[in-house]
Amino acid sequence: MTTTVQQTDAEAAVGTWLSDFDRALTSGDIEAAAALFAEDSYWRDLVAFTWNITTVEGPAGVTDLLTQTLNGTRPTGWRVAAGETPTRGDGVDEAWIDFETNAGRGRGLLRLRDGKAWTLLTTLYELTGYEEHSGPTRPIGTEHGIHQHRETWLDRRQREAKELGYETQPYVLIVGGGQGGIALGARLRQLGVPTIIIDKRSRPGDQWRSRYKSLCLHDPVWYDHLPYIKFPENWPVFAPKDKIADWLESYTRIMELNYWTHTEAKSAAFDEATGEWTVHVERDGQPLVLRPKQLILATGMSGRPSIPDFPGMDSFQGDQHHSSAHPGPDAYAGKKCVVIGSNNSAFDICGALWENGADVTMVQRSSTHIVRSDTLMDIGLGALYSEQAVANGVTTEKADLIFASLPYRILHQFQIPLYDQMRERDKDFYDRLEAAGFDHDWGEDGSGLFMKYLRRGSGYYIDVGAADLVANGDVKLAKGQVDHLTEHAVVLDDGTELEADLVVYATGYGSMNGWAAELISQEVADKVGKCWGLGSDTTKDPGPWEGEQRNMWKPTQQEALWFHGGNLHQSRHYSLYLALQLKARMEKIPTPVYGLQEVHHLT
Amino acid sequence: MTTTVQQTDAEAAVGTWLSDFDRALTSGDIEAAAALFAEDSYWRDLVAFTWNITTVEGPAGVTDLLTQTLNGTRPTGWRVAAGETPTRGDGVDEAWIDFETNAGRGRGLLRLRDGKAWTLLTTLYELTGYEEHSGPTRPIGTEHGIHQHRETWLDRRQREAKELGYETQPYVLIVGGGQGGIALGARLRQLGVPTIIIDKRSRPGDQWRSRYKSLCLHDPVWYDHLPYIKFPENWPVFAPKDKIADWLESYTRIMELNYWTHTEAKSAAFDEATGEWTVHVERDGQPLVLRPKQLILATGMSGRPSIPDFPGMDSFQGDQHHSSAHPGPDAYAGKKCVVIGSNNSAFDICGALWENGADVTMVQRSSTHIVRSDTLMDIGLGALYSEQAVANGVTTEKADLIFASLPYRILHQFQIPLYDQMRERDKDFYDRLEAAGFDHDWGEDGSGLFMKYLRRGSGYYIDVGAADLVANGDVKLAKGQVDHLTEHAVVLDDGTELEADLVVYATGYGSMNGWAAELISQEVADKVGKCWGLGSDTTKDPGPWEGEQRNMWKPTQQEALWFHGGNLHQSRHYSLYLALQLKARMEKIPTPVYGLQEVHHLT
Repeated sequence: MTTTVQQTDAEAAVGTWLSDFDRALTSGDIEAAAALFAEDSYWRDLVAFTWNITTVEGPAGVTDLLTQTLNGTRPTGWRVAAGETPTRGDGVDEAWIDFETNAGRGRGLLRLRDGKAWTLLTTLYELTGYEEHSGPTRPIGTEHGIHQHRETWLDRRQREAKELGYETQPYVLIVGGGQGGIALGARLRQLGVPTIIIDKRSRPGDQWRSRYKSLCLHDPVWYDHLPYIKFPENWPVFAPKDKIADWLESYTRIMELNYWTHTEAKSAAFDEATGEWTVHVERDGQPLVLRPKQLILATGMSGRPSIPDFPGMDSFQGDQHHSSAHPGPDAYAGKKCVVIGSNNSAFDICGALWENGADVTMVQRSSTHIVRSDTLMDIGLGALYSEQAVANGVTTEKADLIFASLPYRILHQFQIPLYDQMRERDKDFYDRLEAAGFDHDWGEDGSGLFMKYLRRGSGYYIDVGAADLVANGDVKLAKGQVDHLTEHAVVLDDGTELEADLVVYATGYGSMNGWAAELISQEVADKVGKCWGLGSDTTKDPGPWEGEQRNMWKPTQQEALWFHGGNLHQSRHYSLYLALQLKARMEKIPTPVYGLQEVHHLT
Repeated sequence: MTTTVQQTDAEAAVGTWLSDFDRALTSGDIEAAAALFAEDSYWRDLVAFTWNITTVEGPAGVTDLLTQTLNGTRPTGWRVAAGETPTRGDGVDEAWIDFETNAGRGRGLLRLRDGKAWTLLTTLYELTGYEEHSGPTRPIGTEHGIHQHRETWLDRRQREAKELGYETQPYVLIVGGGQGGIALGARLRQLGVPTIIIDKRSRPGDQWRSRYKSLCLHDPVWYDHLPYIKFPENWPVFAPKDKIADWLESYTRIMELNYWTHTEAKSAAFDEATGEWTVHVERDGQPLVLRPKQLILATGMSGRPSIPDFPGMDSFQGDQHHSSAHPGPDAYAGKKCVVIGSNNSAFDICGALWENGADVTMVQRSSTHIVRSDTLMDIGLGALYSEQAVANGVTTEKADLIFASLPYRILHQFQIPLYDQMRERDKDFYDRLEAAGFDHDWGEDGSGLFMKYLRRGSGYYIDVGAADLVANGDVKLAKGQVDHLTEHAVVLDDGTELEADLVVYATGYGSMNGWAAELISQEVADKVGKCWGLGSDTTKDPGPWEGEQRNMWKPTQQEALWFHGGNLHQSRHYSLYLALQLKARMEKIPTPVYGLQEVHHLT
């Protein structure tokens, strides 16, 4: 709780810092600016200074960033955001801030310790001269006055749908029409960037509809809003998959997206000379060439399914498929089902199969981090994404910025105590799991689920009940590596033979640049390198430290190729920064990229 | 502007009044309660006390209302609403209030003059024990834990869709799936009232899609929100018809309404003994009998088209149709078009025909009230429904209650000065119209558009440009009554002969009880009587004074028959009170109706 005295002190400290920073930047005194940052400090910039998503550390990092960006950015007007008041607590002064650059308007979050910046988040939220038409500047809708041969809204929409991709070319092509492609498409629509989203499925939302039938979102509603239209107050905390699918489908229509169903990208090549992609697609079975300036791969942060190559798979007589192709439990009542893997998909599928009366065995090959959904909601997300948070004035938009303001380098330090609490709260649950022989962990440094998600996008299960099936033996647990398959069984390396009518390979996914290999070339995939992960030097996230998620929502080593994806939160939040980067390029606003990432890993 | 001293005075006055009122009601002292109202005062109740929509006047009216309702209602807890502060201005103290009855929770708006109630609005917003699941009580969405043979959300929706109307019966049947039926259906869904909405068209929203192509809403976005999901910030001020249609279609899906397209009600009869309707419908061409307990006619406040019976219509060789059946201008470029009528539909159709290159004549038969859309927005609606209003904290929900709090008896007094301002602001415009010979008016008492809408639902045009076509002669103006048609012309009573390839009868609509005559019987239509209008004793709204709109959203003389309709504002606001009345009946909560309206007119 901030007292009035603390608040006044915080206001003074923040005011001094901002005016010092403003003066240093305006006068080009980079040394003075850098001196305003603590030795142990982090400046995270989302597009405002760097036309990139970048974090620099300490005065040296600040010096480097400003040396390369200050001339092109010319930021001014550093101030506490209108209607906000700096707060003080635990030795930290915190303030929402606003500023302008020569390209647009920015906002951010500043934290001071002893008068020096400890963390600074700067984000661009709109380009000057290209503001979205919203609220007081919303479109009028009708052209008042009478005009002969008027083109109505419907005429325009129909003409656009007919011409775009045929007589006119989109500036942006988004491959993949899940939540990521849709959220980005909506933002680009509002920014007036001609865009086509293509997806091979029949309807928007089919990405969710096609998954196993008992699936509900594992993240709560406050975390899941799309841009522009929030879920209503009666929306469930954890939306069932078909309900979220219907929402996405309606959203696509209402936001007037050019969304092509039944359309598959067959190949893509970038012409450096013309700065244009040639993308061969097949729409409703008809071949067509698109020539966008920018190509976005939004085919899922999970990348391509990793399908193992066990000896004997070719002679197995039952059904076998990757978890991503699992049709649900309906055909497997009374059947013997073996699920290889012990993460989210494996648990969900085991649970649904068991619910439907199958005989289920889970094969655990390595340790899994498990947190109970309720507990994760209360302890892990509650402060930012909950009914209580909204009641406290932490809107989803603010929560996104608060979350973004915590530097990845030290984020695990904030996470570890939360997971310590969870461990304590659910001790009985973990004791039961351990008693059943299940190997579980809390991440290599005890930092839990969200860090695992950011580092490797795997290795965990948000328990909505299926863990109990393992704990109580309803779902049998086998442990070890798969040695081979026979015609009717999975055989583990200790000789255990698991009879099977069905084998599900819940064996995860590759890196998103695999999509680039498939669509463009292995050469481009290698040029771009691994997507996702931070370089934390933990399992499946090798070093060196990269500071930000690899290749996501920011320029890559391949000009005009971008990766967009992640959960609904990331699709919402980062789509803004990706959209602004694309819009700026369309409008030929200079976008010199600071700190373009190097490639350290290919997959 | 309320000063601090005024505010304190207002708080004191309101506090005293509320505690006096509370004490009088709690002790059953009706005389004391009535004495708290000024001689010149109005208490409007929406369902909270009266299970009706009723206004009583003066202490005598209050005495009558309380004598009949107090015992059944037992209201308590009269207080200023949480977070609100009474205000003082122009001799009036105003306060948002909350209270409870033995059936539910209410809110309202109180205005005091010299310490006595001048206006009191009381509304019921939820039934105790039947609260909607929203915000903190929203559904969880997934059933945590594992359950064999789990029924998923999709399973449930599909089963419901399959069974409702066949194996199970809806409690409510809504005939007509426009904005009215949809908004009511959404509220009933949230209240757990099994409901089917039927509509003869192919898709939700077709009510709008089928209208002339240049149509945009004449009311601005802030006035048009549906319940639960607001239009987004980028939504146009005046939504094009096809865009609002798409919204309604998506909304229907997202709110999980049981909406039957291609379904027509053929006949309906109420069985007093079983308290059940027998409704013969045809769904996708298949006959089916539905047996709802409650029947809602939501087929449009405009009622059935009034098609005139001019001599010679049968021999006219060109196209002729009512405005409601007008297909748009596409077929009429270069054709001679005569539009009979000079209200909204006539102007819109004339404008669209002229835009498409037709030769257009408007036949004015009586005077029309015209206001320019911009002016109406600024002066007529701005304080309650505008970007500015929202910025001032006047949410759509608050605006609805403020509007509802102005008693119909004196509403014209608030309206007249606004229209005086409009007349002044647009003097040039009216001078030009008059110079062109167009007869216009401001309503019989100068109270303008909204009063005409409430009294008769006709007699006006919200100008979005077409009036200029008449003023400048692009659309020709003829005046007088139609005498007859020839094979190729419309002949007026002064002998003027207007050659015509097309005649559009923009001749208005009958009363909504005409729908009851068509569907049920003339006997029931007559028993129910005229719908709409206030009894203002002005043109098309004959006296005696009825105090509220006839038969709308409230009990009628026919048990279990209800009328729902109106613009988007009314569909949103009054659907709540109608839904609560229906829910209470379903749950067998006593709903004694105070002041059931008498029938003074049949049409």
